[in-house]
This record gives sequence, C-alpha cells and structure tokens, in this order.
Amino acid sequence: MKVEYINPFIIATKEAFTKMVGCEMERVDLYVAEDDHPVKDITGIIGLTGRARGCVAISMTRELAIRASQAMADNDASELNAEVADAVGELANMIAGGAKAQLEQFEIRISLPTVLFGNYNSIEFPSETPALCIDFESEWGDLTVQVALVEEAEVAAT
Amino acid sequence: MKVEYINPFIIATKEAFTKMVGCEMERVDLYVAEDDHPVKDITGIIGLTGRARGCVAISMTRELAIRASQAMADNDASELNAEVADAVGELANMIAGGAKAQLEQFEIRISLPTVLFGNYNSIEFPSETPALCIDFESEWGDLTVQVALVEEAEVAAT
Repeated sequence: MKVEYINPFIIATKEAFTKMVGCEMERVDLYVAEDDHPVKDITGIIGLTGRARGCVAISMTRELAIRASQAMADNDASELNAEVADAVGELANMIAGGAKAQLEQFEIRISLPTVLFGNYNSIEFPSETPALCIDFESEWGDLTVQVALVEEAEVAAT
Repeated sequence: MKVEYINPFIIATKEAFTKMVGCEMERVDLYVAEDDHPVKDITGIIGLTGRARGCVAISMTRELAIRASQAMADNDASELNAEVADAVGELANMIAGGAKAQLEQFEIRISLPTVLFGNYNSIEFPSETPALCIDFESEWGDLTVQVALVEEAEVAAT
C-alpha cells in the first residue's frame, strides 16, 4: 500500500480516541510489519471494500479497552467481556469511517467488525499485501493500528 | 440475520474445500452462538459490504489448515506459518466469494482477509448482530464457519 494512505488512519485514530474515550493518543512509531504483527490483549478487525480493498486491525491493552468501554458506554466493565468487545468494535468502525471520509477517491465501504480477545500470537495479512503498523501510546495504555489497503486494478490502471 | 442467508455460505464452504483442498466437508451442526464463539487453531476473517454488511470467520484445526496449504500451494508446510495463513485467507476469500454469487441481491463486495493463529479464546461479533455458526467435519479435521450479515436500512425498508 502507498504510505500516503496511512495519514487518514492516524488522524482518524486520534480523533476517535479524543472524542469517544477522552484520551490523547500519541503516535510513537510507524513501520512495515513483515513477519511478526504485534497483537495486544484485544483486537478489533474491520474490512474495507470499494475502489480499494483492505482491512484495519486495532489492537490494544486490556486496561485501555476497559477504560474505553467505561467512557463510551458509561459502564463499570472490569474485565474483557462482550461490552468491552462492542466498544473495541465501535472504535474500529469509527477509525475506518474517519479514514474513509479522507480517502473519498476510493469510495470505501466498511464491513461489520469482529473482535478477538485472549492470548493469541499473531495476526497475518495476505503476504502480497504488507500491512503498515502504527504504534500509539496514551496514559491508559498502548494501541497498535494495522492497515492494509490495495487499489483495485481499474483504479491502478488509470 | 435471516437464516435463509446461511445456505449460500454452506454451499460455498463445501465447494471451496472440494475444489481447492480435495476434501469433503460434512455439515454437522448449525446454531446461534450467543456468548461463546468457538475458535480453533487458526481463523481467517473477511468483511462483507454492499446492500448488506457483515463478516465471515472460518476457524479450523491445525491439521486441516496445514493439509489445505499443502493441497492449495503444493508446499510441505508442517506448522502454522505465513504460507498456511495465506491458504486460510484464500479459503475465506473463496467462501465469501461463492456466497456472494448466490446473494446477488446484496451486491456484496469482499474485503482483504486477515488470519489469526495462536491460542486465543473467543471471537466476538457485534452484540446486536448474532452470528450463525456452522460446524463441519472432514477426514482432515474440523471447521467452524461463522457468519453475520445484516441488510442495510434501504434494503430492509423496501
């Protein structure tokens, strides 16, 4: 994917956390994950289609996810449960939606999110489509956003 | 989601495994997973957009994934590596693609797949959208296909 497509996801991530969680996210690193895609305690995944196809995975620490759920749904979540999963799915949805608005040339549409939690090891993107990883830090914990986005052939050819 | 949308995914799963892996899949169960979405050793996830939004997760045993990779890519994979992940992602892509062709009223488009492996616990779909789970058995191992699909409002209103 082209590096210039990544900025909309960085902006959308900061906006989503500021607005919905009340938490400032600081970007600390940006890199291509080749073999080892870092995964934290809970991960939301959402698919992108349109004139570009892709996916976004947002992976965060347990504490950050719980704080996000408390802030977004005004609950007292204290463990990784279905309410927290919904908050993480909604954040993935908002980040994809915010980036989509900035990438209007691709007429992106967004799938439903899925959320995975537990002690798993790795997330793999299609090997011909390396994902870009963006690491963020905040007072409530760390977040990694991984994005893969490829232009559809008819766009690439124009 | 409506139960009648599930048959295309059952047919597409059987076709994908027969054609690409040379393996007959027998459907053994179909149910709504409420709290506990079963996850096996390796899981491929793909997003669906269009006049219906959704996602498909295919989760299978280690042996089945390795056999699928050997059959599809003519390799000698013996562990869950990137080649196996590609095979699982490609199977997710084929199942979504096969179902899409049978659900043409929704003009479905398919995102890139992501693949997760490791010892994780659970996969969550948005709580307002219960996913249907389809369990399959084969001589090489078990497979669960989970599907969530909701019609977009403009379709539902017609």
